Amino acid sequence: MPATSTDPGTSRNRSWWGWGYADAHPDDAECAALGALLPGTLNRPLPIPRIADLPIGKPAAAPPPSLAHLVTADPQARAAHAMGKAYRDVIRALRGRPGRIPDLVAHPTDDREVADLLDWADAHNVAVIPFGGGSSVVGGVEYRGNAHRAVLSLDLTSMDRVLEIDTTSRSARIQAGALGPVLEAQLRPQGLTLRHFPQSFEFSTLGGWLATRAGGHYATVHTHIDDFVQSLRVITPAGAGTSWRLPASGAGPSPDRLFLGSEGALGIITEAWMRLQERPRHKASASVAFTDFHRALDAVRTIAQSDLAPANCRLLDPGEALFSGASYDGSAILVLGFESATSPVDDRLANAVDLARTHSGHRRRGMADGNAPADSTVSAWRSAFLRMPYLRDALARMGAVVETFETAATWDKIPALIHDVRTEVGAAAFKITGHPAIINCRLTHVYPDGAAPYFTVAAVGRPGDEVEIWDDIKAVASEVLHRHRATITHHHAVGRDHRPGYDLQRPEPFTLALRAVKDALDPHRILNPGVLLD
Amino acid sequence: MPATSTDPGTSRNRSWWGWGYADAHPDDAECAALGALLPGTLNRPLPIPRIADLPIGKPAAAPPPSLAHLVTADPQARAAHAMGKAYRDVIRALRGRPGRIPDLVAHPTDDREVADLLDWADAHNVAVIPFGGGSSVVGGVEYRGNAHRAVLSLDLTSMDRVLEIDTTSRSARIQAGALGPVLEAQLRPQGLTLRHFPQSFEFSTLGGWLATRAGGHYATVHTHIDDFVQSLRVITPAGAGTSWRLPASGAGPSPDRLFLGSEGALGIITEAWMRLQERPRHKASASVAFTDFHRALDAVRTIAQSDLAPANCRLLDPGEALFSGASYDGSAILVLGFESATSPVDDRLANAVDLARTHSGHRRRGMADGNAPADSTVSAWRSAFLRMPYLRDALARMGAVVETFETAATWDKIPALIHDVRTEVGAAAFKITGHPAIINCRLTHVYPDGAAPYFTVAAVGRPGDEVEIWDDIKAVASEVLHRHRATITHHHAVGRDHRPGYDLQRPEPFTLALRAVKDALDPHRILNPGVLLD
Repeated sequence: MPATSTDPGTSRNRSWWGWGYADAHPDDAECAALGALLPGTLNRPLPIPRIADLPIGKPAAAPPPSLAHLVTADPQARAAHAMGKAYRDVIRALRGRPGRIPDLVAHPTDDREVADLLDWADAHNVAVIPFGGGSSVVGGVEYRGNAHRAVLSLDLTSMDRVLEIDTTSRSARIQAGALGPVLEAQLRPQGLTLRHFPQSFEFSTLGGWLATRAGGHYATVHTHIDDFVQSLRVITPAGAGTSWRLPASGAGPSPDRLFLGSEGALGIITEAWMRLQERPRHKASASVAFTDFHRALDAVRTIAQSDLAPANCRLLDPGEALFSGASYDGSAILVLGFESATSPVDDRLANAVDLARTHSGHRRRGMADGNAPADSTVSAWRSAFLRMPYLRDALARMGAVVETFETAATWDKIPALIHDVRTEVGAAAFKITGHPAIINCRLTHVYPDGAAPYFTVAAVGRPGDEVEIWDDIKAVASEVLHRHRATITHHHAVGRDHRPGYDLQRPEPFTLALRAVKDALDPHRILNPGVLLD
Repeated sequence: MPATSTDPGTSRNRSWWGWGYADAHPDDAECAALGALLPGTLNRPLPIPRIADLPIGKPAAAPPPSLAHLVTADPQARAAHAMGKAYRDVIRALRGRPGRIPDLVAHPTDDREVADLLDWADAHNVAVIPFGGGSSVVGGVEYRGNAHRAVLSLDLTSMDRVLEIDTTSRSARIQAGALGPVLEAQLRPQGLTLRHFPQSFEFSTLGGWLATRAGGHYATVHTHIDDFVQSLRVITPAGAGTSWRLPASGAGPSPDRLFLGSEGALGIITEAWMRLQERPRHKASASVAFTDFHRALDAVRTIAQSDLAPANCRLLDPGEALFSGASYDGSAILVLGFESATSPVDDRLANAVDLARTHSGHRRRGMADGNAPADSTVSAWRSAFLRMPYLRDALARMGAVVETFETAATWDKIPALIHDVRTEVGAAAFKITGHPAIINCRLTHVYPDGAAPYFTVAAVGRPGDEVEIWDDIKAVASEVLHRHRATITHHHAVGRDHRPGYDLQRPEPFTLALRAVKDALDPHRILNPGVLLD
């Protein structure tokens, strides 16, 4: 039985209740120091919850002997598979109100075992929740409801190998359960990389990225994992199949695009041929400061509409820049990065900085040369980026309500959208909590026709009501997004938390189509019930 | 009633039986001169067929008075909507054996009229064949079978306006029936362009491009129309809907991608918000000659795997280069083109030529500077490219069997695939016709992980048996593609002609899904019956 709390390739323990590695969590003193930054938080952190205190009962179903070696009812494994890593998951754990704990956790090692587990679950009305790294922040990996006899968390991380590498076509066949570092380690000896680096990189899997259309490394052009898919293998209760490895095709609607974003509701993605890249040899980055956020938006739009194609083009508003240590003077900061395996990128960086200058941007500090480390603003921002989920959990322990949400909209709507989120979500948070909230914004990905704003909200909770407070704040945010016809999610997925927004956004013919596909591929509705559809 | 044989915006008559404009067809003397290049062809061209000779009967259904003004039973209109423009369509017209002539042709002018026509057809078992420019080369716009009471060709070209332009987000809402030149003319005053230029540009519509996932201008990165879609409006017998205008989204599977490539079988695309670009200000092109085709393949792969992103990167094998006037010395020719609205492209061109040189490529003639007209090899190839379908029809009139097909595969398969198509299709053509056939190949689009080879076959027919000869040759070609797991089509679509190959290629879960969607959106199966599915 694979250990469920220790990462493959490391000996570090994963936290069952919070983000990432348990040994990377801020200690109580750090939590208190962080909490002091937000007036109204608790005086001391909530205690770290213990699995022994959870209401973990006897499993309501047992697999047949032929599958028993793949399945565990161990309380630690079940607790670690009960929820994702949203703020509302963390606070539910801290408050002793976790989501429904699955009855069983399975660790299949190949397609046959996945199919056998599905067959058993299908015959016994057992809900199957596919589980990769468990980093969902939208309620994507938990069970809600009571229509099933039992709940099985299907953990795919024992299927974590790169099975084939085709260096000529620069592509690899990779099992869906490989975590980011695990798959990159297997590609590195060939000088190749998938170069998909979401914030959750260490704690999410290829299959999770595919099933949720994750957003990765690139700020422009190929932003989502979708574009790097050459072929998918999918196992459904109605049968399995693999699309052909093709660089492109015009043969009917794309079969892969129907399963990308299907969030485990239509089938289990067990492996994929992915398009790889050479590791970049040329890098250059810079940061540009703006005193006027709207001029900064214009600058980013101009760069996004050029053909410069920066790898990184993230605009931090003054609050976000302050929070991440990128700027302390009230400036908005544009973090620009260029990368290439082929040729130097200094000219492209210089051109982008020039475009920013025409919109009153000022380059910060000295220009980093082609192969030098990123400039210090960029480094500061990157460290903060990876550390942020840990800090969120620390603030959660201090009773704060700290969460993020993201969207995307066309450029014509972006300024009013950001304004309305700030004012209306701010007003709602004040009304709900009685305290002013912090609402920061950054653009994480940009396109010729629009951008993806990413918001961070930090408010003061009322002890015990944190989930309800966040849900009320988020409902207002979702209303603003809907009014502007901004997507309910750019790359966090729908899961269960975004269902109301998604149901309003989905065009009616596609709703009919999706329901029909669900009925055809998962007629007994055992697959991740409640995501995407009822 | 709109004229059916005269193009909007021009006074030129479209040919009902062959490619393009009637006045652009080679005359009898030119046909004879062309035919003389291929030993074994006829001494004089087959006569141009006359509509008066066609078996056009009384329509088997009549619309209600409320729709009568949208519908015609005029023989000329019905003949012009009976088939697409494949070789087998042209020869069927020339031999007086056209496909089933539709009973009626409708020209709706708005969504309401499209929905009303669908309602009527749905209630009366009338098959509806959506028709844009009618340039299908895969049997996509004709009716086969006899399960329906009547056949209605739904011509969308009266819906040809650009309804809105959003210059900030560089996008436009465009009606699906706009032909390429018609929509570009409406975008030009804003300095914007869709920049989608398939070979059929003059004779195909936005809706046709979307429904068939057309391949356009770019040889790299964004090759298909798919990537330029921001939002689609679709009308189905089960209801209508419009996806939100989004630059990107991670909310469930992409709703638009299910209708892109649906070939009119799932719904009628009536309009789309499309991503536009500024018109390029910087252009540079060059041609590079190779004495060894395999070295040329390596050169193209190296360029495709760089980040140079040429707009044009077409490799012509020696026969193709000869046929198009690009080379007479047995060289393979790589046509390279770079374009940008932002910055000069000479460096990128020079870098690409350098990469080609490392694979023994030799640049032809002088280097064209940034804004100069393309070099003469490039010009020769471009003219030949646009003229080619007319020449095909001329050769058809001389009794030759001349047709093309295209595919895509990963790089590891490309050399053997091209070799096997050449040898096995060549052997089959010889066996079938008793004469050697010409089989040329070019790469039209290239990717980091593969390429799209495009084959031209010219063989000698037996008078009256041309369709069967071509079908037999094509069956062998399709077998070779299938054996190599190369797609049955890169950008020509499936239609009816590619159904056997498509049925083998489609992964089983997607087959189940597609059938379920068809049942949900088109329960009485009136929409383009026979494409994609039975």
